[in-house]
Amino acid sequence: MPEPAPVTAAILIIGNEILSGRTQDANVAFLAKELGALGIRMREIRVVPDIEEEIVAAVNALRERFSLVFTTGGIGPTHDDITSPSVAKAFGVEWVRPPAAVALLRRHYTGDDLNEARLRMATVPEGATLIDNPVSTAPGFQIGNVYVLAGVPAIMRAMFEGLKSRLPGGRPVSSRTVSTFLGEGAIAAGLGALQDRFPELEIGSYPFFRRGKFGTALVVRGTAEAALEKAADGLRGLIRSLGEEPIDGEVA
Amino acid sequence: MPEPAPVTAAILIIGNEILSGRTQDANVAFLAKELGALGIRMREIRVVPDIEEEIVAAVNALRERFSLVFTTGGIGPTHDDITSPSVAKAFGVEWVRPPAAVALLRRHYTGDDLNEARLRMATVPEGATLIDNPVSTAPGFQIGNVYVLAGVPAIMRAMFEGLKSRLPGGRPVSSRTVSTFLGEGAIAAGLGALQDRFPELEIGSYPFFRRGKFGTALVVRGTAEAALEKAADGLRGLIRSLGEEPIDGEVA
Repeated sequence: MPEPAPVTAAILIIGNEILSGRTQDANVAFLAKELGALGIRMREIRVVPDIEEEIVAAVNALRERFSLVFTTGGIGPTHDDITSPSVAKAFGVEWVRPPAAVALLRRHYTGDDLNEARLRMATVPEGATLIDNPVSTAPGFQIGNVYVLAGVPAIMRAMFEGLKSRLPGGRPVSSRTVSTFLGEGAIAAGLGALQDRFPELEIGSYPFFRRGKFGTALVVRGTAEAALEKAADGLRGLIRSLGEEPIDGEVA
Repeated sequence: MPEPAPVTAAILIIGNEILSGRTQDANVAFLAKELGALGIRMREIRVVPDIEEEIVAAVNALRERFSLVFTTGGIGPTHDDITSPSVAKAFGVEWVRPPAAVALLRRHYTGDDLNEARLRMATVPEGATLIDNPVSTAPGFQIGNVYVLAGVPAIMRAMFEGLKSRLPGGRPVSSRTVSTFLGEGAIAAGLGALQDRFPELEIGSYPFFRRGKFGTALVVRGTAEAALEKAADGLRGLIRSLGEEPIDGEVA
């Protein structure tokens, strides 16, 4: 039976604060791990500024190439929050205020507190499905294969937890890690040969500097458990053949 | 006198380990701050996997649009280190082994230790200029407006420190931050009006959750110190007009 086409994903982070170095992104690692556990392959991350044409171009480039696109950031009430109208433009649809979205905000903000700025958070591309925000009410939304989430990590995570059961999954990718204080250059030839023996797996080599020494973490990833075990044995054998004792897992 | 065109930059991070969530990127924040101090505007970040066609496409897209492109990762000796030949392909030039690069490695690795895998680290696109690596010898390189750096943070930083005096600078961007425990929705209207008064500055609004409360950090950025001070005073006045005392800087 042929392997079904993998479900792929991209993340689009919208915000000048990441580009200026003011804020360290905290959403990519969370989404990458969650999507990996669902068998969805993360294939690209982009960070773009709060500029409409940049957001439109990135949304359209990514939604054509990947099964799923997740955006984070730029959906608040201020002048620099332009993700929602930009996504409407990318899809060529109107930017509308569904009564259901306004009703959500009206439960949270009473009277004059529901001002025009906050009502922008109830304005979404026509045809979008709202994504629940259990933390601070203002919803995210889905249109086509694009999921528009908040940038604040606690809110982004809550939104993702609510929608993840609806995502199309794939076969989850597992991994095995074997580490060594050998340098990458010493193991490169044997590692390349091992990769050739297991073309269905992906073998990665990640240099590190810990305990005052350079070393290498070798990570094999794939969907077939039996092959992963064999390849991990192959990694241990390769390290022993070079006179070192392999270390299972990461070196802390 | 018209403002000269700003010097812009993009970062291209090459590596499956960031996409899988295995590794948290540690290079973006460093480069963003260093470039900001040199007056270079960071305009895009992309993360792509260790796949040749993806690297080639990203290098070519970014080097056309931005003044400078910095890549990190994928220049080691193993089979998944394909940045250097991919950059050669992007520029349509041969992948060559300059004697100067081999000589560098020969100072570090003696006899059989300078194996074929390590010699790959002395192989660069034809016409490239080597970038010094004071940590572990294997050089980075520059070709055209693309700077190819290591992915290991300590090595990337050392490479960058060596080359930064040769980078074309711009007028450094400064910033002022004023924080408040008001929500974004309460200040959005006044903030938009302030942005309209200072079109030459960029005013950003960043929600946070600290000390058990939601609040907002307001950051104004620009190259003109006098305008920055006036805009920061405007931010303080806006917060006071809403009945709160402004907090200079970030809320820890």
